[in-house]
Amino acid sequence: MPHTNRQILLAGRPDGAPTAAHFSLVEAAVPQPGPGQVLVRHLWLSLDPYMRGRMSAARSYAKPVEIGGVMVGGTVGRVESSNAEGFAPGDLVLGYGGWQDYSVARPAELRRLDPSVAPPATALGILGMPGMTAYTGLLEIGKPKAGETVVVAAATGPVGSLVGQIAKLKGCRAVGIAGGADKCRALVDEFGFDAAVDHRADDFPARLTAACPNGIDVYFENVGGRVWDAVAPLFNDFARIPVCGLVSLYNATTLPEGPDRTPQLMRAVLTRRLTIRGFIVWDFAALESDFLRDVAGWMRDGAVHYREDIAEGLENAPDRFIGMLEGRNFGKALVRMAPE
Amino acid sequence: MPHTNRQILLAGRPDGAPTAAHFSLVEAAVPQPGPGQVLVRHLWLSLDPYMRGRMSAARSYAKPVEIGGVMVGGTVGRVESSNAEGFAPGDLVLGYGGWQDYSVARPAELRRLDPSVAPPATALGILGMPGMTAYTGLLEIGKPKAGETVVVAAATGPVGSLVGQIAKLKGCRAVGIAGGADKCRALVDEFGFDAAVDHRADDFPARLTAACPNGIDVYFENVGGRVWDAVAPLFNDFARIPVCGLVSLYNATTLPEGPDRTPQLMRAVLTRRLTIRGFIVWDFAALESDFLRDVAGWMRDGAVHYREDIAEGLENAPDRFIGMLEGRNFGKALVRMAPE
Repeated sequence: MPHTNRQILLAGRPDGAPTAAHFSLVEAAVPQPGPGQVLVRHLWLSLDPYMRGRMSAARSYAKPVEIGGVMVGGTVGRVESSNAEGFAPGDLVLGYGGWQDYSVARPAELRRLDPSVAPPATALGILGMPGMTAYTGLLEIGKPKAGETVVVAAATGPVGSLVGQIAKLKGCRAVGIAGGADKCRALVDEFGFDAAVDHRADDFPARLTAACPNGIDVYFENVGGRVWDAVAPLFNDFARIPVCGLVSLYNATTLPEGPDRTPQLMRAVLTRRLTIRGFIVWDFAALESDFLRDVAGWMRDGAVHYREDIAEGLENAPDRFIGMLEGRNFGKALVRMAPE
Repeated sequence: MPHTNRQILLAGRPDGAPTAAHFSLVEAAVPQPGPGQVLVRHLWLSLDPYMRGRMSAARSYAKPVEIGGVMVGGTVGRVESSNAEGFAPGDLVLGYGGWQDYSVARPAELRRLDPSVAPPATALGILGMPGMTAYTGLLEIGKPKAGETVVVAAATGPVGSLVGQIAKLKGCRAVGIAGGADKCRALVDEFGFDAAVDHRADDFPARLTAACPNGIDVYFENVGGRVWDAVAPLFNDFARIPVCGLVSLYNATTLPEGPDRTPQLMRAVLTRRLTIRGFIVWDFAALESDFLRDVAGWMRDGAVHYREDIAEGLENAPDRFIGMLEGRNFGKALVRMAPE
């Protein structure tokens, strides 16, 4: 067991896209678990778009990381030592340990993982926060009905790919938006989407229109920006728009040039009776057991698939995170911190 | 009985605010009821903001009035002659007869009114489409809970005044926005709002903030524009925003100057988990009997009040309609077409 705890700290708040300079790698002592606490060695760190929000001081649904604080993040780890009843060295646990090798936690902050059910890292992806975001947002807000058209962007990511696959299971037409031909091919061949549209194409709006011949009934919003601009004209009456992210805006430092199109959006809300509703996954915490049961069942049946994009070693986390915000990942972004 | 049917036709589509030139008054023959039809002489014509939408050719939830066509509108009238079972001369009926002295209708297009229950003209206001808009939008989308703050603009109008009064009945803090000191006084003294804010005041946003010390949980949107701009920063997490109208935008010919603040709105939706949902009253047609039972009951108990703003004679309808779009009415805008 190493005697140091490598940590990645927030070194400064980015004004725009984060760079390597906004992170610093330091070595600290391995923390000691207090009474009732567990020491966890991290095996996997999750990289997720919401972390960009935590790097800024702006008002959001969670507090920002402090300058000099350890970057937050979901982790899968192994219990190294335990002062808590019910946890023993060797146990695999899901937690929120952050960008570091070790963390201490109380039992309430951990969920035990059974590696015979699913690979442990899936607790950070399809069976974790991203999967539950897709499941709850699509089913509780999107309410897709058979025969409707469901559109999702960042569609090869862990949220988008599950949104499309659940839409298919509900009898919908699933249309994915992604960057580049490889991702678009995977959406159709690997994830079973009915159509995929490359948002980098010059004629992206026209392609999206062609892929949605009956308009759009559900748009699962996780990117915003020019994807939104192409999607909005296609909304059918009574379309539902769960909003769980706006990754294309996270690095923006200014608003786009005018005119101010807010009235256009509100008019569309009125005349087409749209429902636009923001959520974060924990708003639906009561549905966690439904989610785990359904998605684990679909995985067992081979009805849903997932893809992972793995970086090796904590030191590579910042670069991979920066790339994810630019759409360079292909599947759930993970950092392997230590061998399972 | 007069032998002519005065009609107000749409003479042209306004580009901006309508003027007298967009309407023309003509005389036509009184229509003859066909088999199964009823001839109705109109006593009351309703003037409502949605009519501005029907004057334009733009996509909306209903077809535009054709150039040279009779302006549409709700009417209360008396049956003059009947070829339909169940309707006899002298019956009072609610219909959609338009801006004219007479119309013919089938029984399915009419609702019989009992003048012993409520004054017939209330079927165009508090017991009609505006009242049901307030009732369904507030209760089905706004879902106000006791102790929450409900804000509504155009608050002395037939929709806004009922929104605030129902909010009070549900135990909420009701804050009304209106133009001018007289209207603001009436909101508090006559309709029982907790606070009223004059949107014409230079420091309107600051006054609204002061009137909502605990933020805004429900904003019933019927005006848009600068009222929206003042309301939006005050939304609490999980605020609900039923959108039933955008009267401040109806005459707009261009979008406001930039920057484009759409991303700002979408960020607020996300981080504060707002629900923005457009509706028209007939989306909730199934609730009509609940609405009539509840609101008629509250009227009987003296728990809700209403105000009417009456123009005399069809010839004055255009001017009054134009004024209503500018906020010059004070209560439900009606045209008295003939004595009851």
